[in-house]
Amino acid sequence: MNGAVDLPLGQAELTFTAAGDALVRRSVLPSGVRVLSEQVPGSRSVTVGFWVAVGSRDERHAQGEIPATYGSTHFLEHLLFKGTAERTALDIAISFDAVGGEHNALTAKEYTCYYAKVQDRDLPMAIGVLADMFTSSVLDPVEFDNERGVILEELSMAGDDPADVANERFFSAVLGEHPLGRPIGGDPDTIRAATREAVWAHYRENYRPQDLVVTVAGAVDHDLLVGELERALTRAGWRLDVAAPPVERRSTDTATLEPGPAVTVVPRPTEQVNLLLGVPGLVATDERRSVMSVLNTVFGSGMSSRLFQQVRERRGLAYSVYSYAPAYSDAGVFGMYAGCAPAKAGTVAALMRTELERVAEHGITPDELRRAAGQLGGASALALEDSDTRMSRLGRSELTLGEFADLDEALRRIALVTVDDVQALAQDLVSRPFSLVAVGAIDEAAVQGAVDLTAPTSDVA
Amino acid sequence: MNGAVDLPLGQAELTFTAAGDALVRRSVLPSGVRVLSEQVPGSRSVTVGFWVAVGSRDERHAQGEIPATYGSTHFLEHLLFKGTAERTALDIAISFDAVGGEHNALTAKEYTCYYAKVQDRDLPMAIGVLADMFTSSVLDPVEFDNERGVILEELSMAGDDPADVANERFFSAVLGEHPLGRPIGGDPDTIRAATREAVWAHYRENYRPQDLVVTVAGAVDHDLLVGELERALTRAGWRLDVAAPPVERRSTDTATLEPGPAVTVVPRPTEQVNLLLGVPGLVATDERRSVMSVLNTVFGSGMSSRLFQQVRERRGLAYSVYSYAPAYSDAGVFGMYAGCAPAKAGTVAALMRTELERVAEHGITPDELRRAAGQLGGASALALEDSDTRMSRLGRSELTLGEFADLDEALRRIALVTVDDVQALAQDLVSRPFSLVAVGAIDEAAVQGAVDLTAPTSDVA
Repeated sequence: MNGAVDLPLGQAELTFTAAGDALVRRSVLPSGVRVLSEQVPGSRSVTVGFWVAVGSRDERHAQGEIPATYGSTHFLEHLLFKGTAERTALDIAISFDAVGGEHNALTAKEYTCYYAKVQDRDLPMAIGVLADMFTSSVLDPVEFDNERGVILEELSMAGDDPADVANERFFSAVLGEHPLGRPIGGDPDTIRAATREAVWAHYRENYRPQDLVVTVAGAVDHDLLVGELERALTRAGWRLDVAAPPVERRSTDTATLEPGPAVTVVPRPTEQVNLLLGVPGLVATDERRSVMSVLNTVFGSGMSSRLFQQVRERRGLAYSVYSYAPAYSDAGVFGMYAGCAPAKAGTVAALMRTELERVAEHGITPDELRRAAGQLGGASALALEDSDTRMSRLGRSELTLGEFADLDEALRRIALVTVDDVQALAQDLVSRPFSLVAVGAIDEAAVQGAVDLTAPTSDVA
Repeated sequence: MNGAVDLPLGQAELTFTAAGDALVRRSVLPSGVRVLSEQVPGSRSVTVGFWVAVGSRDERHAQGEIPATYGSTHFLEHLLFKGTAERTALDIAISFDAVGGEHNALTAKEYTCYYAKVQDRDLPMAIGVLADMFTSSVLDPVEFDNERGVILEELSMAGDDPADVANERFFSAVLGEHPLGRPIGGDPDTIRAATREAVWAHYRENYRPQDLVVTVAGAVDHDLLVGELERALTRAGWRLDVAAPPVERRSTDTATLEPGPAVTVVPRPTEQVNLLLGVPGLVATDERRSVMSVLNTVFGSGMSSRLFQQVRERRGLAYSVYSYAPAYSDAGVFGMYAGCAPAKAGTVAALMRTELERVAEHGITPDELRRAAGQLGGASALALEDSDTRMSRLGRSELTLGEFADLDEALRRIALVTVDDVQALAQDLVSRPFSLVAVGAIDEAAVQGAVDLTAPTSDVA
C-alpha cells in the first residue's frame, strides 16, 4: 500500500492491502451498516467488534427536571450482556465460554465496542451472538436493577484506585467543561438515578443500522462475513435493503477549552501520591500526530525515555513514570504521570515540567529521533501480530479518522518528522495552560510551592 | 506428539513437536546451561527468557545478628538492569527501546525470569544483552541506593492497591509460616536494611551456569540460538566446557502447612471490601491438576461460571468475582475473590462458601464438564498464538514440572476428567481449613458473624 486510504461514507465497496499482506475489504450496506475486514495470512484466530460512535461525551446534561444521563452509555453496554428475546444472560456467557473465547465490551469517551476473540471456526457463532445482543437486547427491569448494583461496585473499585482517580480528575482539569472531561462511567448519583426508560431511549436512538460498524481481523473471509452478518441482522428484524443516509463523522475542529483549576489536590491516606501534570494536546486528526508520537516516545515512553531516566533511573523517585497523549476528535491531552512519596511530590512535578521545558528550549537529538522511529516501528510490528490490535485499528480508522493508514504509511509519516518539528511541538505544549493533579497524603500548598504553574516558561528551565 | 515428554536433567539433546507443528529442541550444555527453543511456523516475532529457579521462597530468615534477606531476589532482579562492565543502564534500555521490543523481568515465589519480545531479526541483540545482564552485572553501590528508592515506591504502590494487599495477606493466612506465604518483594524494613554485600552474595550463589535456563519461542533456529548464546556467555568469561553437575529440581513432596488466622481483617477507608476466601490447594505436579482446572473453570472462571452467576448476575453484589488456583512445587492455594460493598461482605463470603459446598455435595453437571473442556481448549489455543505464552510454558516445564505437555496432551488429560473427579476434589477442598481475608472498611465481628469458618461443612450448604 502507498499512502493512506480514504474511507468515504458513500462508497459501497473498497479493497486494499495492509501490513503483512493482509487484505482489507470494506462494504457499506444500503442500510448504512459498515463492515470492514482484514484477512491476515496464516492467522488461526479472529477478533470481531461491533461499534457505535457514541460514548460518554454524548450524554446529556441535566435540563431542568430531567436529570443528567451521565453513565448511561456504559450502563447500556452492561445491559447488552443481560439477555435478548432469544438468549438469557447465561446463554450469552455460555456461548463464548464454551469455546474459550474472549468476550467483552468497552465504553470509551467517543465510542462503544462489543468484541470477541475466538478460533476461526467459531466466527459464525460470534457474529450471531453479538448481532443478537446489539439489535435485540430486552433491558429487562429486574436485570436493570441488578446491573445497577454491579456498576456501582465497578465505580467503587475505580474510586479505590488512586491512579484511576488521578486520571479522571486530570481530564476534567485539562478539558474543563468540555464533555470529554467527564468520567466515562458517570458517578454514583447519576447511576442511582438512571431509569430504564432513559437507557432504553438511548439504545433506540443510537443503535440503528446506519450507526453500526463491524470490524473483523484475522482468519476471516469478507464475503462469508457479510453473508453471516446480513442473515443475523435480518433475523433480528432489521431491514437491510432500506436505504439510510450515512451518519456523518464527528467534527474534527479543535474545540476551545476553558481549563479547570491549575492545581487539584484529592486528599487520600495512601502511601504514594499519584501525580499528573500536563496540558491540552492534539486532536486525533492533527497533522502533527506523528510529531506527537515521536515526542511522547522520546519524552516518556520506555526505559530509555527522558522522564524514566530523570525521575527513576537517576534519582530513584518513582517506580512508575511515563507520559501519554490520548487524542479525540476535537480535543486531546498531553500528560506526565508518576507515583511517588508525598515528600517528593513537589520535586517530581518540578522535574517533569523542567524536562518538558528542556525539550522546548533545546530540542531532541538526532539519535533520539532515530531511536524513536525504531521504537514506534518495532512496537507496531509486534502489536500487529494480534488480531485484536488490527480489529481495533480498523474500528478507529472508520469511526474517527475516516482514513486507514497501514504500518508502512505510519512509518513513512514518522520518518518525515524532524528534530525541529518535535521542538516546535514542545514549545507549543509548554505555552498551554498546565494542570496538576495530586491524589494522596499531601496538601495543596506543598505542591503549589514546588511548581508555580503561572510562571512564564522561560523562568523554569 | 503423544503423551508428555520428560525433560531429564542428564540428557544432552532432545527434539519433539508441539501444538501448531512447532519444533521443540532442548540442549543441555556441558556446563549445565539448559537451552530450550520452540520454533513456531509463520511466526515473525520471538520471545526469549533467561530463568533461574530462585524466588522469594528461597530467601533467608533473620538469624541472630544477620537480618532476613526478604526481597533480595526482587532487588537483584532490578539491579540486573542497572549496568554491566560493558553497558550502562541507559545502554541496556536503549538496546530494546530502539527496536520497539518489550523487555522486562519477573520475580516470582519460585523463579526469576528476564525476558524480551522482539522481531526475529533482533534476537541476536536480545540474547547478547540479556546474557551480559545475567552474567556481568556490577551492582554499582550508587545505583544500588537509587534502586532501593524505586523498590520502596513499588512496594508503596502495591500497598495502595487493596486487591494486592488482600492477595498477600491471603497467601500468608493459607500457607502460614511456609516460605511460599511471604510477599515476593519483601517489606519496607527489609528493603531499607538490604546491603549490597548480601545481594551480591545472592547473585554469585544463584546465577551460575548450571542455574541458567534459556527458553525461546517463535521465529527461532535452535542451532543459531545455541551458537549466539555460547558466544555471549563465553565473552562474559563463563567456562562452558567445564562440566557441572545438574542442579536438582525442587522437591515436590506436599508440605505440611500450619495455616495462619482463620479471619484476617485489614482496616482501610476504601469504598469496597476486597474479600478472599479459600483453602490450601494442590501442588504443581499433583495428578489432579487437570481436575482442578476443570473445577476452577466451572466454579469461578468466566461469565458463565457459578461464582459469576451467583454473586454478580443474580444478585449484583460485585463487579469483579472469580476463583483461582495457583500451584507451586510443594504447596498451592485455592481462592475465591470478590470486591463488594462493606455491608454485603458477609453475604458474599457466605455465598462463596455455600457454592463450593454445593459442588462438594452435588457435583457439577455433564454439561458443565463438557463446556469446561471446550473453554480450556479454546483459551489455550488462543494463548499459544503468542510467543510469550510459549516461552513461559517452556520455562515452567523445565524448571518446575520436569516434563513438557503440549496442548493435545493437556486436552487429553482434561478429557479424562469425570464429574466424580471434580466432586471428589471439591469434597477434599471443603474439608481443608478455610482462611478469610477482608481489606476494607469493615470490622472482624461483621465478617465472622456471617461465615463461621469453624462450622463442620455439612451445616453450611
